[in-house]
Amino acid sequence: MTRSALLLCLLLSCLPPLHAATVERVEPENWWVGMRHRQVELMLHGQDIAALQARIAHPGVRVTGVQALDSPNYLFVTVEIDDDATPGALEIELLDGDAVAARHPWRVDAREPAPPRGFDARDAIYLVTPDRFANGDPGNDSVAGLREAADRANPDGRHGGDLAGMRAQLGYIASLGFTRLWPTPVLENDQPGYSYHGYAITDLYRVDPRMGSNDDYRALSREARAHGIGLVMDVVLNHIGSEHWWMRDLPSRDWINNAGRFSPTNHRRTTIQDPYAAPGDRIGFTDGWFVETMPDLNQRQPQLARYLIQNTLWWIESAGLAGIREDTFGYADAGFLSAWAKAVMDEYPDFAMVGEEWSPNPAIVAHWQRGKANASGHVPHMTSMMDFPLHIALRDALLRPDTWESGWTPLYEALANDFLYPDPQALVMFAENHDTTRLLAHVDGDLGLWKLGMAYIATMRGIPQFYYGSEVLLRGPSERRDGELRADMPGGWAGDAASAFTGAGLDARQREAQAFVRRLFNWRREATAVHGGRLVHYVPEGGVYVYFRDDGAQRVMVALNRNDSATPLPLARFADSIGHAREATDVLTGARLPLGESLLLPARAPLVLELD
Amino acid sequence: MTRSALLLCLLLSCLPPLHAATVERVEPENWWVGMRHRQVELMLHGQDIAALQARIAHPGVRVTGVQALDSPNYLFVTVEIDDDATPGALEIELLDGDAVAARHPWRVDAREPAPPRGFDARDAIYLVTPDRFANGDPGNDSVAGLREAADRANPDGRHGGDLAGMRAQLGYIASLGFTRLWPTPVLENDQPGYSYHGYAITDLYRVDPRMGSNDDYRALSREARAHGIGLVMDVVLNHIGSEHWWMRDLPSRDWINNAGRFSPTNHRRTTIQDPYAAPGDRIGFTDGWFVETMPDLNQRQPQLARYLIQNTLWWIESAGLAGIREDTFGYADAGFLSAWAKAVMDEYPDFAMVGEEWSPNPAIVAHWQRGKANASGHVPHMTSMMDFPLHIALRDALLRPDTWESGWTPLYEALANDFLYPDPQALVMFAENHDTTRLLAHVDGDLGLWKLGMAYIATMRGIPQFYYGSEVLLRGPSERRDGELRADMPGGWAGDAASAFTGAGLDARQREAQAFVRRLFNWRREATAVHGGRLVHYVPEGGVYVYFRDDGAQRVMVALNRNDSATPLPLARFADSIGHAREATDVLTGARLPLGESLLLPARAPLVLELD
Repeated sequence: MTRSALLLCLLLSCLPPLHAATVERVEPENWWVGMRHRQVELMLHGQDIAALQARIAHPGVRVTGVQALDSPNYLFVTVEIDDDATPGALEIELLDGDAVAARHPWRVDAREPAPPRGFDARDAIYLVTPDRFANGDPGNDSVAGLREAADRANPDGRHGGDLAGMRAQLGYIASLGFTRLWPTPVLENDQPGYSYHGYAITDLYRVDPRMGSNDDYRALSREARAHGIGLVMDVVLNHIGSEHWWMRDLPSRDWINNAGRFSPTNHRRTTIQDPYAAPGDRIGFTDGWFVETMPDLNQRQPQLARYLIQNTLWWIESAGLAGIREDTFGYADAGFLSAWAKAVMDEYPDFAMVGEEWSPNPAIVAHWQRGKANASGHVPHMTSMMDFPLHIALRDALLRPDTWESGWTPLYEALANDFLYPDPQALVMFAENHDTTRLLAHVDGDLGLWKLGMAYIATMRGIPQFYYGSEVLLRGPSERRDGELRADMPGGWAGDAASAFTGAGLDARQREAQAFVRRLFNWRREATAVHGGRLVHYVPEGGVYVYFRDDGAQRVMVALNRNDSATPLPLARFADSIGHAREATDVLTGARLPLGESLLLPARAPLVLELD
Repeated sequence: MTRSALLLCLLLSCLPPLHAATVERVEPENWWVGMRHRQVELMLHGQDIAALQARIAHPGVRVTGVQALDSPNYLFVTVEIDDDATPGALEIELLDGDAVAARHPWRVDAREPAPPRGFDARDAIYLVTPDRFANGDPGNDSVAGLREAADRANPDGRHGGDLAGMRAQLGYIASLGFTRLWPTPVLENDQPGYSYHGYAITDLYRVDPRMGSNDDYRALSREARAHGIGLVMDVVLNHIGSEHWWMRDLPSRDWINNAGRFSPTNHRRTTIQDPYAAPGDRIGFTDGWFVETMPDLNQRQPQLARYLIQNTLWWIESAGLAGIREDTFGYADAGFLSAWAKAVMDEYPDFAMVGEEWSPNPAIVAHWQRGKANASGHVPHMTSMMDFPLHIALRDALLRPDTWESGWTPLYEALANDFLYPDPQALVMFAENHDTTRLLAHVDGDLGLWKLGMAYIATMRGIPQFYYGSEVLLRGPSERRDGELRADMPGGWAGDAASAFTGAGLDARQREAQAFVRRLFNWRREATAVHGGRLVHYVPEGGVYVYFRDDGAQRVMVALNRNDSATPLPLARFADSIGHAREATDVLTGARLPLGESLLLPARAPLVLELD
């Protein structure tokens, strides 16, 4: 080609055309300067971008590598952010050779000054199903472009509860004595139906518009903090919703377990530690799907693993979270769970994370708590686990009359298993949650037994978790029907006949229960003996279970009497724990009681005493 | 006094009279040269001997100290035996000042050359209630001077079974395939009634004369060895019988717990590891008595602790034992249990000891097994424990139909807990024992379920233990009535209409059961895959539980089908374990079976296959 021909060629674009690409998404949309996790792997999605290179020209920020997988439409770009990088907007340039094929805005931000504190036994957690708690913004009940519209008449439909509703009731939650708020997932669940529960996430970086915006979520966290409440995010690592945008264009063939096809999990969680489990059974547990609408993520895929870890860090940093609750814990890959939790705890040493391992067996649950030396080789980094074994034992204890083998004794014996946990004080205690029947239904409406259960979780070692609405005796079905269990909170919707929030229209029993909860958990907020005091419990006898908490500064005696009549409790057996105390204050009534030879315990009720 | 007066005085014995004492007992009556335990503390009992000194003049044997306690009638004499001491008879001289107040014969013996081997997964244990197994010597059924006479008509009385009976049937026991014999205690139980069971020992150094003599016991052990059977002694450290001679003259005020007065144990075994147990409850567990007729020993008393340790060593050495079964394990003092088991294992490194901790909780049982790192601080030295958790799970599995939560699955899941044990292969597996209902009664006479249970204990990891008489379908009551459960073995008494030993008079079902046991345990004797092979088990499905044992040299497949009809078992799931095998031998029938796409499992029966 002659020189003039070449010039002509350039003018007429007869060279191979420049690749003009479009980047549809970059996730995460920003990162922060000064994170320990300074090497961020961005997921870029756009038509045919996989073959491109990437470049960033910004002080202290650079691209250190790119990686494509099976799909031509994803490019994973590793960006390194120096501690002295300049916060601000920047551009990611995608290069086709030397030519810039696309530009996409990105950002590095300065961090908020105070890193969040997690939760510990000083806290009490209020669990909310956001769609059912309070409808703060009726305008977002149904949102154009999202598949499921509100239908309050359908127990399994969306009812309109949202972030605005929770924001409006933070004062109420704080007034009950709670210090942490755990809403079940609020990220986009753009599923055709049954999407209100939130566990079928279709966009891991976006709050569902029917709940509000990402900014609303940050505002919820900020406003909660102002009420002394830390926000706990419900994270789902095991699966996504079947309408997640990935499902239309999987980054790699191994992104979803079982080659992207539905095959149910066998739910055999023992296989994780079982020294004899057939390998196929172990895979059948972790790689099987929960349901067809929840594709099961393969966290062994390195880009996906990094995506999920960064997603968690991003939400913590972005929203100033005070904790994570991780769903269906053991169903995810164990190696990944270790890496994920380690990354979070390395970044936020004062953070807390609680995992859901729904097993009655404490040896199964303890496997996942930080500090446990496991025969399986798994190195756990979770600060906390949901105490399902004690939850199950508590409910059995309340249901079954006292005999040699039932009643309080199995609960007493279950607690003895605490030697299996590296840190039992960090476990989350609960009598009910969004997946169980409510305690009131479980005990067939018996308010005495209900109070015994609530007093137990409020005074036992660990971190209590309470489920919204039980304070006004939402009862729900006696068998598991989730939609009905997660009933609308009275007062959360305009026009409700009664309101938990204002007290209007509540009957006497509801008012009694709410006052009980308010008194118990407000007292607990300052009860240092319960936060970290030594626990001593006594073999239950005659329908009464007695234990003490003592931190040197405060001494608390709890007597749980399940008998139908007032029961005398001779005190000689407890002399070691009562010591020189001669009087006590009844925490629930304020009454003063002498500690003589015996106490008369009220019928079918907890007695919580602060000893002088 | 003048010289002549003094002489007169000597002649007339007007000096304080020489203390002429009588030693009624010295325990143990001998020791051995060359034991690691070379410093033996002898218990001497005799009127007013506590203030005396002791001397032995024998090459390599010397007294190194004496100790008296509260009673004036006991002297504890510590004797040290050099490795080059001369075996033979000697005298213990008790000294009052320089004068010899008493002499008592004693002995140091040469040791038998071969130290005993304990038991491990190569073995199978046959458990016998000696009073009910075989009456080899009707002449000792009732013995003058012992309180209870024989009364075969009384289910709770003595029936006359004895050591001679066991000695006569060693060939029978060996022919069934068993390699260890565990008789429940045979030491003196000179209680006024209900003494046949043997657990209320009144002399820890003497076989009950109604069973035979100490020499007969040694002969039983020796003759058993000749049949390839090791003798396992049932040791009781927790308590004695109320007619033990100590009870008439306690060596010290703290010899018996609760100051020698009856106070029942609370049976709350969790208190041992419970980090929150009230100290009084822990003491209430270990120091409470089983029953009023069984005073509870205080093993914290140093002389008693040494007495019990030496007693165990003495029986092992004296009778050439091949193992110990220790009764009511956790009820004894934990520190003592550690010291006791350590002393035995230090002396006999190849020995084995199995403890009884009757708990469904593997974390409770594992606490006691050698190698377990315990939060409680307890350092265990027991090689083995009775696998009560799996025993309970097996019986539940056989009783309850297959659902998501019952049937084989809980058994499968219980086995997964093996990660809690330092050495699950060393646990003793059992479907029944002398304290439970028999398996046949438990499954309401269903021979298919019974065979499933027996095949399980014979092929699962660990050491199987079988209870006498079940091979001829002794059934016993469906609720616990010990006297009836421990029924007389057919053929053990002259004039019995049927005999398990000869086969005479057995019906077809009994012959089938006995042939099944004989085939199963004789096969097991050589089944190296079962002795120590790798175990892989599969999630039970459709009423079928499948597992494999494989030691490289032998591969065994076990399929337990509880269905009422023959069940096809597709084999694809087990490809990893079946490997290239294309044929197998049915261990129970000898039939050859092709390993194609599926196997047809016989209805309600175990299928045990050796793969080619």
